[in-house]
Amino acid sequence: VVAALSSWPPVEPGSPFPIANLPYAVSTDGIVVAVGDHALVAGAAAEALGSPHAGLLGQATLADLLAAGPQTWAAVRHDLTRWLSDPALRPSVEPHLVPRDGVPLSLPLAIGDYVDFYASEHHARRLGAMLRPGGEALLPNWRHLPVGYHGRSGTVVVSGTAVRRPWGQWRDADGKIVFAPTRRLDLEVEVGFVVGVPSTLGQPVPVDEFERHVFGICLVNDWSARDIQAWEAQPLGPFLGKSFATSVSPWVVPLAALMQARVPVGSSGGDELLPYLREREPWGLDLALELRVNGEVLARPAYRSMHWSPAQMLAHMTANGALVRTGDLFASGTVSGPELDEAGSLIERFGGDRYLADGDEVVISALAPGPGGTTIGLGEVRGVVAAAVEHPGHARAEDHHQSKSP
Amino acid sequence: VVAALSSWPPVEPGSPFPIANLPYAVSTDGIVVAVGDHALVAGAAAEALGSPHAGLLGQATLADLLAAGPQTWAAVRHDLTRWLSDPALRPSVEPHLVPRDGVPLSLPLAIGDYVDFYASEHHARRLGAMLRPGGEALLPNWRHLPVGYHGRSGTVVVSGTAVRRPWGQWRDADGKIVFAPTRRLDLEVEVGFVVGVPSTLGQPVPVDEFERHVFGICLVNDWSARDIQAWEAQPLGPFLGKSFATSVSPWVVPLAALMQARVPVGSSGGDELLPYLREREPWGLDLALELRVNGEVLARPAYRSMHWSPAQMLAHMTANGALVRTGDLFASGTVSGPELDEAGSLIERFGGDRYLADGDEVVISALAPGPGGTTIGLGEVRGVVAAAVEHPGHARAEDHHQSKSP
Repeated sequence: VVAALSSWPPVEPGSPFPIANLPYAVSTDGIVVAVGDHALVAGAAAEALGSPHAGLLGQATLADLLAAGPQTWAAVRHDLTRWLSDPALRPSVEPHLVPRDGVPLSLPLAIGDYVDFYASEHHARRLGAMLRPGGEALLPNWRHLPVGYHGRSGTVVVSGTAVRRPWGQWRDADGKIVFAPTRRLDLEVEVGFVVGVPSTLGQPVPVDEFERHVFGICLVNDWSARDIQAWEAQPLGPFLGKSFATSVSPWVVPLAALMQARVPVGSSGGDELLPYLREREPWGLDLALELRVNGEVLARPAYRSMHWSPAQMLAHMTANGALVRTGDLFASGTVSGPELDEAGSLIERFGGDRYLADGDEVVISALAPGPGGTTIGLGEVRGVVAAAVEHPGHARAEDHHQSKSP
Repeated sequence: VVAALSSWPPVEPGSPFPIANLPYAVSTDGIVVAVGDHALVAGAAAEALGSPHAGLLGQATLADLLAAGPQTWAAVRHDLTRWLSDPALRPSVEPHLVPRDGVPLSLPLAIGDYVDFYASEHHARRLGAMLRPGGEALLPNWRHLPVGYHGRSGTVVVSGTAVRRPWGQWRDADGKIVFAPTRRLDLEVEVGFVVGVPSTLGQPVPVDEFERHVFGICLVNDWSARDIQAWEAQPLGPFLGKSFATSVSPWVVPLAALMQARVPVGSSGGDELLPYLREREPWGLDLALELRVNGEVLARPAYRSMHWSPAQMLAHMTANGALVRTGDLFASGTVSGPELDEAGSLIERFGGDRYLADGDEVVISALAPGPGGTTIGLGEVRGVVAAAVEHPGHARAEDHHQSKSP
């Protein structure tokens, strides 16, 4: 029914923000909702209409809305849809529409824990073959559980934030230990999942209760310094090679807008899966991602090629009793398809021959099928690489950037 | 000067909480400060004395005090010392002293990012020898940087919280992939460092600016499920084997109480260190830790045997421009000395032959030298292992706990 609706605010055919989408973001005016080329200042509109949701939508952050749970999410979405489709309400609502381009958007979440998975078999195999030449490309645990690790929540930044080339330590080709600006700055095309309803310590979230806890999705660029990462990551995993910045798109697309995009994932229906990872209804997503660097399309990864779904990630992440909190973010890991022009990182795309230069602009966007032939867009996550700067304490008096290898 | 002071509240000789300590915790009455067997309800006392710090000390959490910075930390500590040592103030202050044992203490921090290091060479070598028999015990990066990884901040719990035996996935000795309660539940004796003053994205914290950012220290038990950890950790490090619970002591001992405990660490003065990791004044700590399980002392790890100092950890963690936030917690990793009865984990202590049973009580405590022959105590971090419970979604209809190995 929603599919057939059209909005009175004009929406171009094929717009990534039809009324069937209605993603949320946070601006200096509070919560905004995208429709076509406009953003609705949701709290002010709710106030003008005397909506019972004026309190939730009038907050300065999404936290209360995220925590409110599926019934409230559906009720708020129902009302937003009505406000933007019923011509009789136009006089009350229209004053609260602003041009979407002019709205400065901030980080949509106060992120508690940030977890990054590794859910693309194509990505895991390509990296495995590069990192362990002659060995097994895929490690033995990979098909039994969604491999993941905790990332740094404090350095998650909103799209548009400049990403400064980080300094770091690694061992160069001659065996020297150096401390210098990374020479292998990479990106990773990922999708992020935003937790709404918290769980309880000691209470795992079953795989089929994904929709009770997760509110929506966004785009993620997991910037990676490959030289730093390769040297530091044994035996405890990535740390400073990733923690300098992780960019997210400002718009959070609610799961309710993605029902037409649900597809099986690589692991769907596999008999070999442990029961806690078996989905009744798969939560793979038919997202067509696009990676552009300086305007050139470098890859079109398809999220439907992933092996693990976000519902499996959530079930696994909480299987030991770990809780999730409102605002927690977990990301898919690099989305890479079987072909090189579907690879979601430069190390895969160019086999280690090309990385990011200062000034490069990286833009990731995504589209999904919506109801009635509409297109659901995730917007984009954008970042420009800024040149490294030297800081006090990096070199000290000695100006001594190398030390002997053992 | 402070060293010579004695408090009018009675303090037994050798008490871990002399007036030279004055650690902070958070109770239902707000911020409390330990002295002898008492706790001062700091906000109420400050109010009664018309102190300019009544606002900071009257908060429900330590956040504002932590963020206020070294000058304020010193001023507040100076006043607390005066209130508890000047007999003329006793009539105003005494009504706000309560028995320390009766005060229910909560988590002292809202933790942003939680990072765990791996800073004991003895621990790293013992684990390396067990995990890579025949290979190098110490990986090549270990002596060049403090190896660390991000842990889960949402499951950091205060001392006294029961720790439920987690379920998890691993490969058993026959190669079967099982999902069951861990059979190798371990503990790790660690020291935690609490960030007060935040840093700025893109601005590393030099190694000699540790005291400008870090407020104090606490005890940490990094509970670990070794079977889950061993199976999951390739290639991205520990995840569910650690994320079910991390216990911390309620008392945060300010750095100002630890000046007599400062000692060099293993890496101090090493020419081979890169300049950003070279301390002018070392921040190793002479902490005598004690591990008891069911009342039996199993180990006495000495923190002075660590290779990396917390100042080096902070400098490294921010060398890529990553920021730290008020309430961030970073832990040392397992503190283990050269002898087996100095080993801070059961896998080291008993070579894998003994782990924790349900009902086991684990208590970690620590003492440091204070001024004038006093002893500075960190209090304790305590936890009892609760039996695993099965949850919906773990088994599903099939009651099927095993799957075939590939």
